[in-house]
Amino acid sequence: MRPSGRAADALRSVTLQPGAARHAEGSCLIRMGVTEVLCTASVEGRVPGFLRGKGEGWVTAEYGMLPRATHSRGEREAARGKQSGRTQEIQRLIGRALRAVVDRKAMGEVLITIDCDVLTADGGTRCAAITGAWVALHQAFEHCVLKNLMSRNPLRDQVAAVSCGVYKGETVLDLDYAEDSAAQTDANFVLTGKGGIVELQAAAEGAPFDDAQFHAMLALARQGSEGLFAAQRRAIGR
Amino acid sequence: MRPSGRAADALRSVTLQPGAARHAEGSCLIRMGVTEVLCTASVEGRVPGFLRGKGEGWVTAEYGMLPRATHSRGEREAARGKQSGRTQEIQRLIGRALRAVVDRKAMGEVLITIDCDVLTADGGTRCAAITGAWVALHQAFEHCVLKNLMSRNPLRDQVAAVSCGVYKGETVLDLDYAEDSAAQTDANFVLTGKGGIVELQAAAEGAPFDDAQFHAMLALARQGSEGLFAAQRRAIGR
Amino acid sequence: MRPSGRAADALRSVTLQPGAARHAEGSCLIRMGVTEVLCTASVEGRVPGFLRGKGEGWVTAEYGMLPRATHSRGEREAARGKQSGRTQEIQRLIGRALRAVVDRKAMGEVLITIDCDVLTADGGTRCAAITGAWVALHQAFEHCVLKNLMSRNPLRDQVAAVSCGVYKGETVLDLDYAEDSAAQTDANFVLTGKGGIVELQAAAEGAPFDDAQFHAMLALARQGSEGLFAAQRRAIGR
Amino acid sequence: MRPSGRAADALRSVTLQPGAARHAEGSCLIRMGVTEVLCTASVEGRVPGFLRGKGEGWVTAEYGMLPRATHSRGEREAARGKQSGRTQEIQRLIGRALRAVVDRKAMGEVLITIDCDVLTADGGTRCAAITGAWVALHQAFEHCVLKNLMSRNPLRDQVAAVSCGVYKGETVLDLDYAEDSAAQTDANFVLTGKGGIVELQAAAEGAPFDDAQFHAMLALARQGSEGLFAAQRRAIGR
Amino acid sequence: MRPSGRAADALRSVTLQPGAARHAEGSCLIRMGVTEVLCTASVEGRVPGFLRGKGEGWVTAEYGMLPRATHSRGEREAARGKQSGRTQEIQRLIGRALRAVVDRKAMGEVLITIDCDVLTADGGTRCAAITGAWVALHQAFEHCVLKNLMSRNPLRDQVAAVSCGVYKGETVLDLDYAEDSAAQTDANFVLTGKGGIVELQAAAEGAPFDDAQFHAMLALARQGSEGLFAAQRRAIGR
Amino acid sequence: MRPSGRAADALRSVTLQPGAARHAEGSCLIRMGVTEVLCTASVEGRVPGFLRGKGEGWVTAEYGMLPRATHSRGEREAARGKQSGRTQEIQRLIGRALRAVVDRKAMGEVLITIDCDVLTADGGTRCAAITGAWVALHQAFEHCVLKNLMSRNPLRDQVAAVSCGVYKGETVLDLDYAEDSAAQTDANFVLTGKGGIVELQAAAEGAPFDDAQFHAMLALARQGSEGLFAAQRRAIGR
Repeated sequence: MRPSGRAADALRSVTLQPGAARHAEGSCLIRMGVTEVLCTASVEGRVPGFLRGKGEGWVTAEYGMLPRATHSRGEREAARGKQSGRTQEIQRLIGRALRAVVDRKAMGEVLITIDCDVLTADGGTRCAAITGAWVALHQAFEHCVLKNLMSRNPLRDQVAAVSCGVYKGETVLDLDYAEDSAAQTDANFVLTGKGGIVELQAAAEGAPFDDAQFHAMLALARQGSEGLFAAQRRAIGR
Repeated sequence: MRPSGRAADALRSVTLQPGAARHAEGSCLIRMGVTEVLCTASVEGRVPGFLRGKGEGWVTAEYGMLPRATHSRGEREAARGKQSGRTQEIQRLIGRALRAVVDRKAMGEVLITIDCDVLTADGGTRCAAITGAWVALHQAFEHCVLKNLMSRNPLRDQVAAVSCGVYKGETVLDLDYAEDSAAQTDANFVLTGKGGIVELQAAAEGAPFDDAQFHAMLALARQGSEGLFAAQRRAIGR
Repeated sequence: MRPSGRAADALRSVTLQPGAARHAEGSCLIRMGVTEVLCTASVEGRVPGFLRGKGEGWVTAEYGMLPRATHSRGEREAARGKQSGRTQEIQRLIGRALRAVVDRKAMGEVLITIDCDVLTADGGTRCAAITGAWVALHQAFEHCVLKNLMSRNPLRDQVAAVSCGVYKGETVLDLDYAEDSAAQTDANFVLTGKGGIVELQAAAEGAPFDDAQFHAMLALARQGSEGLFAAQRRAIGR
Repeated sequence: MRPSGRAADALRSVTLQPGAARHAEGSCLIRMGVTEVLCTASVEGRVPGFLRGKGEGWVTAEYGMLPRATHSRGEREAARGKQSGRTQEIQRLIGRALRAVVDRKAMGEVLITIDCDVLTADGGTRCAAITGAWVALHQAFEHCVLKNLMSRNPLRDQVAAVSCGVYKGETVLDLDYAEDSAAQTDANFVLTGKGGIVELQAAAEGAPFDDAQFHAMLALARQGSEGLFAAQRRAIGR
Repeated sequence: MRPSGRAADALRSVTLQPGAARHAEGSCLIRMGVTEVLCTASVEGRVPGFLRGKGEGWVTAEYGMLPRATHSRGEREAARGKQSGRTQEIQRLIGRALRAVVDRKAMGEVLITIDCDVLTADGGTRCAAITGAWVALHQAFEHCVLKNLMSRNPLRDQVAAVSCGVYKGETVLDLDYAEDSAAQTDANFVLTGKGGIVELQAAAEGAPFDDAQFHAMLALARQGSEGLFAAQRRAIGR
Repeated sequence: MRPSGRAADALRSVTLQPGAARHAEGSCLIRMGVTEVLCTASVEGRVPGFLRGKGEGWVTAEYGMLPRATHSRGEREAARGKQSGRTQEIQRLIGRALRAVVDRKAMGEVLITIDCDVLTADGGTRCAAITGAWVALHQAFEHCVLKNLMSRNPLRDQVAAVSCGVYKGETVLDLDYAEDSAAQTDANFVLTGKGGIVELQAAAEGAPFDDAQFHAMLALARQGSEGLFAAQRRAIGR
């Protein structure tokens, strides 16, 4: 049924390659099927103005796509002179997702900037970015502990994200581009290792969806996230 | 419990004043408690490039806030030279919500631009904007039918939005600013008159939330939306 | 003769509604006929860099128009990414007009930002903005006195503005849009309660005008301003 | 009394050098005392969108100042990425002033862009720009007649501008920078050769001014403009 | 002597991986030591306005750096809202270099956009970009021939680039970051396979250099380019 | 052969007029044939952030062209809202060229901004800007010595620039616009009075060039620069 031949509840193959960026304090190259996102975490000893002097840290994210990460070339946002609404939406989501599992007091006045750059896009880039960014952030925090910038790793939990959708009437997990562009409903779930929900977004592309469809998607997402959490733990050597 | 003294499942008082903008083809001033949003619908006989020659129409939205709609003055986006990520997120949401209930083929090649400008903000401005915009859009479509630009009103259903949240551990409907700024979880539900879900977004501000909390919020939203749909029907004289 | 049937020396009906904006320290909704401008005054305890440490305050203004305040929709300046030359001209004029009647030393190092947002446009928006802004500013200063930020209200005089023009060869007071768009000459007069001139601008749209026409316009403006000053005094309860 | 020792009704020395720009169809370098503005007129065979197909031409103006035209260096507007409100105000004024004496139907669908760039600033740059631009425009129209783009020179009259002000209580003509920066009132008059007023702007810098002061300034301006009109006629060889 | 221990005339290890970008018509990932640049070539059936209807094609380039490609994080140009002068300089250079070996008439009215995005920076990114871009462009042209968009591959020659510099008094080939940031002189050479010079740029960072030093650098560059041309030929299977 | 009738090794007539800008601490109007560039040097007692507290000065440059300096009018960069890549390339080059001959420690924490504005363009504007800017900078430094801001003039050497090219197969010195727009190769040489090379840039416009052509251009440039250095020395009264 699915263009990829996957079962409705099957994730694409996931690989997480920590340390993929030579210069960053933390990094991870995540591949979900063909989708490929390079996540880096950069540590700086300063916080945004609204936090100065409060003894807390901050985690923020930026997102970008190489112009030819996609099937046809997209305009370079730097050349156009501004980031699209979609880009801003995604980078705000990534930042919120990560902050939900960070003890910001334990960071001290440190800023960590997560950059998620899509090298190849085939659907699900924002979810892959969150899942990969968690590994990069973990590595950066380990670096901070090693350098005595922090007394312990401020991560309280894992966080990962996965999409679900209604494709040709069927509820499916982890949409690729072929499915995404034809789906009636598209949803993203940001979940924690301990089973909490950090954020969920679901949108009908055509006809509205109903409660049953939403619950089916949530159940699929919960199940799929287990594979992502396991991959994250392997990536950080647990 | 609630700062306003409202019951957990009580909407704020809602008023919808159609025709509030003298020059627009459709308009509605919506008040939800203190929150006040002026929605106008402007009709133009042209569509964006990607639709030209396809015989379909388009509905798009823009959102803004008067600088002193808020407790302390916010920077004017026109002076700053760009719209914030939040503004873009909201105006994209409004556009998607409305398009979900429009038969775009029945519009012909007509563009309707919805402007939602917040005159007073007290929480829930994006939801109020959607609920009010539907009335403005309905009025603009009636205008188009009258002027023989369209053979029938292309609206297929009502659409309205309401927020819910977890405030001091309790699940509550229609957050005002005092609640919103202190809520652990904040969710927005865009629902149709026939019971479909067009879009839902829920985000933990602090601790993650669980399925039970989410379901309680969804149930509150469904109930609260009935009051909004009834108000919309009264506003358009049904 | 006039599209509105008004006598050549008749103002449109004027209403000034102080306190129209819930959150602002000072505010006034002014209506001149159909034209409707919301003026707010926001108080902040800082001054621009060039005044720091000089013990003086500053009053500045920003101006905007809702996209559908006009007969056909205008582009949203925040979306376009810059304010038009016209907008900048008007907001600079409003700021100068108000500063002309303020004792800035009596303010102390306080900044007051006046926002004038046009809800409905039917000619004369810049004049209405000045007349209404004075009431908002008065209210904000009273607030500052009450809060002991200032020892007395720093306003030295009233200031109001009115347009005149040559329409179909006749000199008329307070042009509405129908007249404004067809006038041969268009002039704006910013006058003080004590009879001084703060600013005057007159421009020929087609043929140049002569001294006699200008003097006739100035006389009309002086007369018309009396009605505005009286309305301002009523609005502040004098 | 005046820093320059000039009589109250004395213009600075004026020189108009037509043809000062090698490549432009029309040009004039105007010097008013130390102030020096290079005006060029560029002819193009296209009109702005709103005039296309109407058989009329357009005259528009742009204004700039070299960063070190002034006593202390000003920021380069091209580097800052936007034109100031002052720049926009001035270039709009120059355009209106010139269009007031042009028969746009006689131009045909031709666009003339006037560039006024201040090489040295010592007060009165906007007035000098208008006076010099008229000569540049005349030369460009002569060029168009010669090239058979127009059947006759579409200029209907001369236009020139001069400032007046109240300096140390005295009404004076043609303010230089030392006077301008200290004047209580500052006014600009745009007048035609036949005695018409195209535009006038007067603003109190400190205390408001009265009718008598305004009339005195207008009378000085009328007198001073005679010298400018004569200089223009000499420059075009009449 | 050299931080890397390389001989003065030794290139870093070079690898060229064609087809590295899944969606692009042509692509190449080039590594020069640690420096890593992803080059893609995107084919579109339209040319810029100035070439329309002339039967010729165009090759243009854009350049970017991931924010954490560098030792410390650089600001994201898309977030900042403009490309730096350095970025523009480099992308203009890449475009000129490639156009120098393309028969643009043989392209027909086709636009090829080369995107060079630096994944890891360790000096010499602009040179690596040119060398890699040639392979991506070659692959895109082969694609066009295969799809019958062009009758033959319009490349007339190879083009590659390499840097040289004076480091601690010695003339060295292919500077890495450690050398680049300390070099007295820095030069880039863009050379063709047949021995022509397309572009050369040399700049003293501290003391000026002399003719002998320049000639030594040019000789090193010529020698080093042989290794790059050979690697390109291997990459395209010749 | 050459459109101007000049010998292959002949410079255009050069005049350097120091003090051409009334208000600047240093200035020079340079004419090379028809090309005319006004260079000013502005002194400020502050340095950019990266130099604060280091006891060193900085010299930076900005470049602009009047819209009608060219044969057909170019868009005003201030109106367009950004500087072109070409402008940025040139102003960076001018800054580097001047810094190469300045002892920045001898400046103390002083910033000198060089503005180079092209009044008339006929080829070679960037070279003329460098040659003229040196004179303006010298004058500004003399001013600083006189005002006891610096104990001696921090200039260590002269610097000047000249272009060469291959025009109709012949290597020629100091290209004017007619040659520049038709040249096969175009090169700019920035040289010091003592014979050092500060920067050189050569680019093939069509066919690549070879070593012999490059050496011929370098030889011409060396010879031509002698005339420029002599003119500079005359301008500063040596």
